[in-house]
Amino acid sequence: MVRHWEDFHVGDVIEVGPVTVSEEEIVEFALRFDPQPFHVDAEAGRRSPFGGLIASGWHTTALFMGMFVRAVLLDSASLGSPGVDEIRWTAPVRPGDTLTGRSTVTDVQPSSKDPRRGTVFTTNEVFNQDGVLVLRLRARGFFARRAL
Amino acid sequence: MVRHWEDFHVGDVIEVGPVTVSEEEIVEFALRFDPQPFHVDAEAGRRSPFGGLIASGWHTTALFMGMFVRAVLLDSASLGSPGVDEIRWTAPVRPGDTLTGRSTVTDVQPSSKDPRRGTVFTTNEVFNQDGVLVLRLRARGFFARRAL
Repeated sequence: MVRHWEDFHVGDVIEVGPVTVSEEEIVEFALRFDPQPFHVDAEAGRRSPFGGLIASGWHTTALFMGMFVRAVLLDSASLGSPGVDEIRWTAPVRPGDTLTGRSTVTDVQPSSKDPRRGTVFTTNEVFNQDGVLVLRLRARGFFARRAL
Repeated sequence: MVRHWEDFHVGDVIEVGPVTVSEEEIVEFALRFDPQPFHVDAEAGRRSPFGGLIASGWHTTALFMGMFVRAVLLDSASLGSPGVDEIRWTAPVRPGDTLTGRSTVTDVQPSSKDPRRGTVFTTNEVFNQDGVLVLRLRARGFFARRAL
């Protein structure tokens, strides 16, 4: 059953993932979108405060999105997102890390403009294989409402 | 001269870009990180409320980061970022769009924990070739302070 706006409830928890990220993927993403030395060069990473190569925070965010889309949005009536209310990169993501995500529905609101859609608010947390929180993300998404 | 924390001042405006995004790049990014139909399939995009293929918001954000890193961070004492305070995807980004960015420094704060670094707060806006705002992003970054 395709998930519509009415199918999200405050307190729902959805587990997503896992995904493992390689050094090659970290460097490839960073060369295109965030070529700071500690994201593209292992030796520069070792000399940095991070003590080694780390993924761009935008890569971590994109990896979470990939997990969330495959677990939730592809089988939903998603109508996109107006934005994100907070991102915190709370610990580095390093080559070989395996990430899992946990999304909690914090609010659901019908649209005041369009009776055919509503907004779902979530707080999303991503953990590495040691249970360390690496990303916290408060987001909102639009979903179609079920036809009456 | 490498830009340190002291070199950012409230009200500074930095223009970054441009970058042009192709349909191929939009689909490639989305297949990996956000494979919703309207991001990966032109026909599905036409049938969606967006009226055509549009870039993942995370792709738009990454494209802005690429411009900002190349214009500012690569020649700076950047120490990474703890996070972002707000993202708004205010209009779709479509194949062939050319984006430019404008970053405004809104606050600068020395670290209360580490006298060797400080935080720079920015509001960043990305526009397409028609001057339409497609992304607004409030961010913060850590920078080393100049050695005394």
